[in-house]
Amino acid sequence: SFKVEKFQLQRGRRRRGSPCFGESEGLVKNGIGDADGIIIVDHGSRRRESNLMLEEFVKMFKEKTGYPIVEPAHMELAEPSIKDAFSLCVQQGAKRVVVSPFFLFPGRHWHTDIPSLTADAAKEFSGISYLITAPLGPHNLLLDVVNDRIQHCLSHVEGDADECLVCAGTNKCKLYNSS
Amino acid sequence: SFKVEKFQLQRGRRRRGSPCFGESEGLVKNGIGDADGIIIVDHGSRRRESNLMLEEFVKMFKEKTGYPIVEPAHMELAEPSIKDAFSLCVQQGAKRVVVSPFFLFPGRHWHTDIPSLTADAAKEFSGISYLITAPLGPHNLLLDVVNDRIQHCLSHVEGDADECLVCAGTNKCKLYNSS
Repeated sequence: SFKVEKFQLQRGRRRRGSPCFGESEGLVKNGIGDADGIIIVDHGSRRRESNLMLEEFVKMFKEKTGYPIVEPAHMELAEPSIKDAFSLCVQQGAKRVVVSPFFLFPGRHWHTDIPSLTADAAKEFSGISYLITAPLGPHNLLLDVVNDRIQHCLSHVEGDADECLVCAGTNKCKLYNSS
Repeated sequence: SFKVEKFQLQRGRRRRGSPCFGESEGLVKNGIGDADGIIIVDHGSRRRESNLMLEEFVKMFKEKTGYPIVEPAHMELAEPSIKDAFSLCVQQGAKRVVVSPFFLFPGRHWHTDIPSLTADAAKEFSGISYLITAPLGPHNLLLDVVNDRIQHCLSHVEGDADECLVCAGTNKCKLYNSS
């Protein structure tokens, strides 16, 4: 399966002395504490395979970060929904829920759909706060991902590297010639 | 505008002594040379704004990497198409075209649509080789992008950081409270 390098996360390390509010037992400022739930939500697809890829990604994220409460969600077309994930977070003790849209760029879903679905989910509970992060892009690291894909595939077709994990076994990563 | 940190790219550095084939003047093994064209292709949207975001991202990529021939493309619904971008690459001297799908995960578009659109585009030319890289995910760096979004937004709502560039001016990045 996909190798996940652990990265050292300063969980709970307070950035700058910021005014505390709502500091409760176990809640850690700016870090992720035991009362924080993370939801990573993609668009959702009729193809089960696509949905499973997001759910696998979320497992990797939980493993890599060590955050206590992390749930996948699909905005539409598949379960778990945002509502399902929100309630799972609260059941596990979350008092603050961070919804992270797994979308390439800000668009209608980020601007409108996900906020309203999350507000709807939150209505079922009281005393829970939530916020919605920016989507993936634009972000400098996405530039590195694209470059890494290009470099790796070129290395492979030149015989210097194996296929990457995505291409492995598909025989797709090769040089084609025009007529 | 979006700050792009330059990264040092060993352009043209040969990885391991691999058998050369088709080494022509200026073609650099495993690195990106003057006869290599890069196409970064997304799904394409009816929303002009989304298409412009990919095109802006491709500008940042060209600036950050310094690759000589880099073109954006949209798989459908918008121009430039893969065919447009492929011919622009050849016009600029590309003998090898690397198509990098800007998609979150491998799906139908990666497996079928983009390969056939690229083969179609290549038919117009002779003596040009091309390859299609893996999509963005799954990739370890995407885990870091998600985590960076979460950490940044939490820092912002705690007063420790400005809004990120995506949220700037939208007033979206704040803590909402359930009923």
